[in-house]
Amino acid sequence: MSEQHKVYKPKAISGFPEWLPEYRAVELAWLDKIRAVFESYGFCNIETPSVEEIDALSAKAGETEKEIYTLTRLQADDGESKEARLALHFDLTVPMARYVAQHFGQLVFPFKRYQMQKSWRGERPQKGRYREFYQCDIDVVNIDELPIHFDAELPAVLFEAYQALGIPPVEIHISNRKILIGYLQGLGVADTAPLTRALDKLDKIGADGVLKVLADEGVSADVAQKALAFVQIKTPDSSFADKVRALGVQNELMEQGITELQFVTDNLKHLHGDKNAGGGMVANLGIIRGLDYYTGTVLEARFKENATHWPKGAPSLSIGGGGRYDDLAGSFINQKLPGVGLSIGLTRLFGLLMDQGKIAAGSKSPADVLVVLPDEARRAEASDTARTLRSRGFKVEMYHRDAKIKNQMAYAEKKGIAHVWFPPFKDGQPHEVKNMTTGEQKPADAAVWTP
Amino acid sequence: MSEQHKVYKPKAISGFPEWLPEYRAVELAWLDKIRAVFESYGFCNIETPSVEEIDALSAKAGETEKEIYTLTRLQADDGESKEARLALHFDLTVPMARYVAQHFGQLVFPFKRYQMQKSWRGERPQKGRYREFYQCDIDVVNIDELPIHFDAELPAVLFEAYQALGIPPVEIHISNRKILIGYLQGLGVADTAPLTRALDKLDKIGADGVLKVLADEGVSADVAQKALAFVQIKTPDSSFADKVRALGVQNELMEQGITELQFVTDNLKHLHGDKNAGGGMVANLGIIRGLDYYTGTVLEARFKENATHWPKGAPSLSIGGGGRYDDLAGSFINQKLPGVGLSIGLTRLFGLLMDQGKIAAGSKSPADVLVVLPDEARRAEASDTARTLRSRGFKVEMYHRDAKIKNQMAYAEKKGIAHVWFPPFKDGQPHEVKNMTTGEQKPADAAVWTP
Repeated sequence: MSEQHKVYKPKAISGFPEWLPEYRAVELAWLDKIRAVFESYGFCNIETPSVEEIDALSAKAGETEKEIYTLTRLQADDGESKEARLALHFDLTVPMARYVAQHFGQLVFPFKRYQMQKSWRGERPQKGRYREFYQCDIDVVNIDELPIHFDAELPAVLFEAYQALGIPPVEIHISNRKILIGYLQGLGVADTAPLTRALDKLDKIGADGVLKVLADEGVSADVAQKALAFVQIKTPDSSFADKVRALGVQNELMEQGITELQFVTDNLKHLHGDKNAGGGMVANLGIIRGLDYYTGTVLEARFKENATHWPKGAPSLSIGGGGRYDDLAGSFINQKLPGVGLSIGLTRLFGLLMDQGKIAAGSKSPADVLVVLPDEARRAEASDTARTLRSRGFKVEMYHRDAKIKNQMAYAEKKGIAHVWFPPFKDGQPHEVKNMTTGEQKPADAAVWTP
Repeated sequence: MSEQHKVYKPKAISGFPEWLPEYRAVELAWLDKIRAVFESYGFCNIETPSVEEIDALSAKAGETEKEIYTLTRLQADDGESKEARLALHFDLTVPMARYVAQHFGQLVFPFKRYQMQKSWRGERPQKGRYREFYQCDIDVVNIDELPIHFDAELPAVLFEAYQALGIPPVEIHISNRKILIGYLQGLGVADTAPLTRALDKLDKIGADGVLKVLADEGVSADVAQKALAFVQIKTPDSSFADKVRALGVQNELMEQGITELQFVTDNLKHLHGDKNAGGGMVANLGIIRGLDYYTGTVLEARFKENATHWPKGAPSLSIGGGGRYDDLAGSFINQKLPGVGLSIGLTRLFGLLMDQGKIAAGSKSPADVLVVLPDEARRAEASDTARTLRSRGFKVEMYHRDAKIKNQMAYAEKKGIAHVWFPPFKDGQPHEVKNMTTGEQKPADAAVWTP
């Protein structure tokens, strides 16, 4: 065929990551580990189509609209133009909201779901920006009212998920929007949006930068200083409340937020256990999260500063986060459906660590054992041996031809297969198995062998 | 928000399936089981982007070109038009071939990979046709030459995968293109393509239908009858060879195909074991597989005729299949890369059984245990209990507020959670656990309890 067709030279497509098998093995293990943590808290899995109607995405898309990929048939020769109404989803939140609205009568509430799928954004390609990426989301949605219980449960799930991955220590930074909004209102600020927008940039532009932006916005120096003092409050427990109140502002919404955040931090004390290698939880009142639909709890996961093997560029990097929203499905259904949710940016995190050489390659083959083929006459016996081992739960490759033994062993070596099994080369000989790490070789019985 | 935005009424998008949690749980279990079988034979996982460059797809697309979905940015306001070169892949074979060519120097050959991803085809929607669907593929690709070993290994993998799903008995129908082509050449047919196309329709239009098509093609009645006799040969073992030879044609290519197919059937005898409930393997010379790139072994999985719970419409339905190809990556790289591969049409199979009510709903929650919250004062103790159980591998929901116990139990019932755990309601009381199936309730210790 190579002569009949023009040769297309295969190349990477910018923004669409693809890993070699030994790294995909690690990514797959990550997905398994995250899923196990999500399920251990009773979240059920759903999967939504890769596409949504553009009208559904637009109901919530806002500024991301320009990043949507729409679908068109290459040769729509039958006059059908319906596909122009479809686009790839850009996150898993809008599809989840649409799903809950669509299947409302068939779900049990509080509805706890996880979703681990790819999303797509037609962004300009640049380092660390992906056009196709995995997100791992959990959300809890309830009818009318959602207990504060879940605001404390979700950060714990998130923390455990990162722990399961064996990456550098992660801290979950948590705040509650009501505290900031109430505080600003208590300071006499009528329109809080420009201030929160400026304060959200603290990690990027620093305190001086924020003060300058606030001055440009016409905010008085006094209010600016007090706002800045607020977002710099960080405590490892519920003592943030004293620090907020020490700033001298009294406000009902603020107090409501403090009560909620105290419930959350009180119920996350266990994250500071010994085994957490310095990770944990931080009440960080500088956490704002730009998206306007959050109404209470907001959280963000970050690598702990100065942790061992701290990835470069980590301080300003959010590797996951989320928060509470009052009514996300409201544009789809005439029901009040408050929720709290979070998302792990898996590809972003994995890609960052890959780029910095911090992901150790996995094995090129999932096999535990390579069964050698001594010669063609003994194929049936070798096959039986492989089948016996498989029936006992081992992953087994059988070598594909009666090549020289050193070639068969070289194959096991190259694929990282830990054990090589030798069926008898002559009648009456025992089976033997070689541990490729220690070099030890000894007789074995496939029916009872354990490594 | 519901008042600010127009209400978009959510609805299913034709051809893009979406399941309720209790059915997604079954689909997910299927994916896990298939993956476990694939890995048990040492296939490594890869994942390719959802998109390929249109040039890459076109190199192999042929007639499917019109079914490709291309991607466009909704608001490409920056003059970039590069995305028009991207399209969603329509299968996993072309991406695999491109992957092998692109990463050629970094792979270990024979390269055994599995891939379980969605593919997309912009087909006209109709019953049983999906526009987005899961495929589960395994392929082995080698340089220059691929041992016949794999032609026998792959059908065994396929058979085990179906067995793992617990669906009605499946038979793997296998042939080898060389036998048919050699046989037709032996009959003096110069251009075999029109005949194979007609013979491929046997299951759909019957013997008379095929004879009529062949007559229309100008094929002599004698050749047509002999060709028809050939494709009706079915044996559960390698006795097909005698039946072919009894038709009186002598041809070298045919004999080569017979030798290959005999190797395959001889090495698949174990599929006829007792536990297979009537499924197994059939040498079926009527298996042709339309796609022109197959050059040797071809196979197709079908429900066994008249099996218990046989799905309606099953006889003509291929629920998976594949074959050997000489050189699939040849349009991407100047290397001869023969392979053998197969694909399970997971969504098609799952959707068929769903439509016929043959999929039993799974649980609405993965949780094994619901931990009751006796009252707010005992929240920490209930949380600790849940954490202890989780650390021991159980999946645990903790109830989200101190509701009446009957409400907490009703929630467990609705979500299908098998055990309800009662922390002490008063100091000094023991923990207790209730089995929701038997109704039995007894004291238990979270540190050592087993169901």
